[in-house]
Amino acid sequence: MKLAQDVLAGKRLALARLLTHIENGTPEGRVALDALFPHTGKAYLIGVTGAPGTGKSSLVNQLARFYRRSVNGSTPRKVAIVAVDPSSPFTGGAVLGDRIRMQDLAGDRGVFIRSMASRGALGGIAAATAGVVQAFDAAGYEIILIETVGAGQAEVDIAKLAHTTLVVEAPGLGDDIQAIKAGILEIADILVVNKADRPGVENTERALKNMLQLAHPAAHVFRHHGQIMEVQGAAPAQEEAFWLPPVLRTVAIEDVGIDELAAHIARHREHLESSGDWIQRERVRLQNELNTLIQTMLVARWRESISEGEYQHTLDALVERRLSPHQAVTKLLAPVTH
Amino acid sequence: MKLAQDVLAGKRLALARLLTHIENGTPEGRVALDALFPHTGKAYLIGVTGAPGTGKSSLVNQLARFYRRSVNGSTPRKVAIVAVDPSSPFTGGAVLGDRIRMQDLAGDRGVFIRSMASRGALGGIAAATAGVVQAFDAAGYEIILIETVGAGQAEVDIAKLAHTTLVVEAPGLGDDIQAIKAGILEIADILVVNKADRPGVENTERALKNMLQLAHPAAHVFRHHGQIMEVQGAAPAQEEAFWLPPVLRTVAIEDVGIDELAAHIARHREHLESSGDWIQRERVRLQNELNTLIQTMLVARWRESISEGEYQHTLDALVERRLSPHQAVTKLLAPVTH
Repeated sequence: MKLAQDVLAGKRLALARLLTHIENGTPEGRVALDALFPHTGKAYLIGVTGAPGTGKSSLVNQLARFYRRSVNGSTPRKVAIVAVDPSSPFTGGAVLGDRIRMQDLAGDRGVFIRSMASRGALGGIAAATAGVVQAFDAAGYEIILIETVGAGQAEVDIAKLAHTTLVVEAPGLGDDIQAIKAGILEIADILVVNKADRPGVENTERALKNMLQLAHPAAHVFRHHGQIMEVQGAAPAQEEAFWLPPVLRTVAIEDVGIDELAAHIARHREHLESSGDWIQRERVRLQNELNTLIQTMLVARWRESISEGEYQHTLDALVERRLSPHQAVTKLLAPVTH
Repeated sequence: MKLAQDVLAGKRLALARLLTHIENGTPEGRVALDALFPHTGKAYLIGVTGAPGTGKSSLVNQLARFYRRSVNGSTPRKVAIVAVDPSSPFTGGAVLGDRIRMQDLAGDRGVFIRSMASRGALGGIAAATAGVVQAFDAAGYEIILIETVGAGQAEVDIAKLAHTTLVVEAPGLGDDIQAIKAGILEIADILVVNKADRPGVENTERALKNMLQLAHPAAHVFRHHGQIMEVQGAAPAQEEAFWLPPVLRTVAIEDVGIDELAAHIARHREHLESSGDWIQRERVRLQNELNTLIQTMLVARWRESISEGEYQHTLDALVERRLSPHQAVTKLLAPVTH
């Protein structure tokens, strides 16, 4: 309880300690998160994803700077950055990333940066990220930027945590038919063409707009997080209920286009609130988190139920092709059933 | 049984039907795979992964062509291509990919191409891919090329199915500190710099070699599939037991460097056989498959154990923050425990 209280009181060191507990999946971390959970739900979560080389990290840094600026004399908002690399089993790269960032936002006590790397446990990284985001939320961080590296299922799961998801592209990467992937477009609320001072920016922009056209043909059918919704008649009043992802240009390292991007994020937030999508998305967010945790727990529980000897014995039979994979699974899961 | 027999007899239509059963997770598919499993273990599995824009598909096509060539009057080997996009919930893109390939290898009855897209089920795509590979193996395909798009956990899981894994890069993509990722280097047996006629090829090659140096410092410590092995003394005889991933250049669309790449694949195969890594890798491959299947099954079984009403009720409590995620999971998993 002490840990949770210290986090609520805004103590940075306690927060850092809690984040480590969450990453390591300790009981202390779970107890503290249980105590903190009623204090969550106030932060605005912005997901930023895209392929390597698109300049996501610079974009996230600039957005953090933007939110740290005092607007009309108001208090600057507290900003957390969670950088997740689901494909890396190491923290090495993540630490390096931290150092590069720290030169940028160093010494600002209103910014907290945390890098996370997968420990190799499938499902584990998304669950840990959700916990880390809740800790920041309870600790009073009003803007949480969640940065992921790639386009795999883990990244999609992490992106689903966010209220607004940015998908970042850059000119020159998109010369492959697979470059802009339907799965990633699905989760995009805003598309950003970063490094927009490079040649080929028009091509990238056009490709993204064509993909959007395919996904939202004639605005009569709207695809939203996997659900296809038919718009009857398509009257203007009904149109407002839908969000067509804008395609924006930025040059993050020169702070170009960041204000406009932030304005579109604010517009998307208003859209979520006015359309009722906010409540819906909050439910989907928490449902995803629940499902991920359940999966992780089921596997952990099963592992405890079976002896190492029995597991290796069954694996032997599989390797010698005396059992098929399906038969081996049936054998190993039997104790749970009966 | 009829389906399995027809597949063993080399009937293409039966094979295509089986692949669909496997993708859809039907009981017919499982029964047929159980019957076919004793006939597997003969194919050589080559994984090809890399970021979008690296030209992986062209490289895979050229390798398929290479293996279809008659060497010294021998019968050309039967080749299967399994193209997997774990991030795409659609088959649309996959089908398009098929058409483009078909112009290449059209009409060759010794080649079978199958594209797979995730149905959104976490863990499901890797399990389905393993089943598809077994079907091809039992049907007598001697070379199976498994192509994946990205660098997420699902791609790593799929790459782990292969005997030899190629990681493909291209010049101009690697200008980000995150571009070449430790997680992906871990799974690479051979590194390929494709599009090697482009400017910047030296930089990409150097970056890859530097990363390898970091991963294998002074050849005293060798990192292999997550295991770190100390080489005592580093005598030449012991050195042979280790495989340092070569960095090769190709221009796939012009068939440049393909013969040399195939020679390195053959060398890696010999290395696996002579060092004993073959048996070890086969065991790890099957263990990964087993674990993935177990996870999928545990989740499916739990879903059946709980009523939709109870699930939604618990989700309500979570959304209203009356329960924390961890408390909700404990509640939902209770029926399984007692």
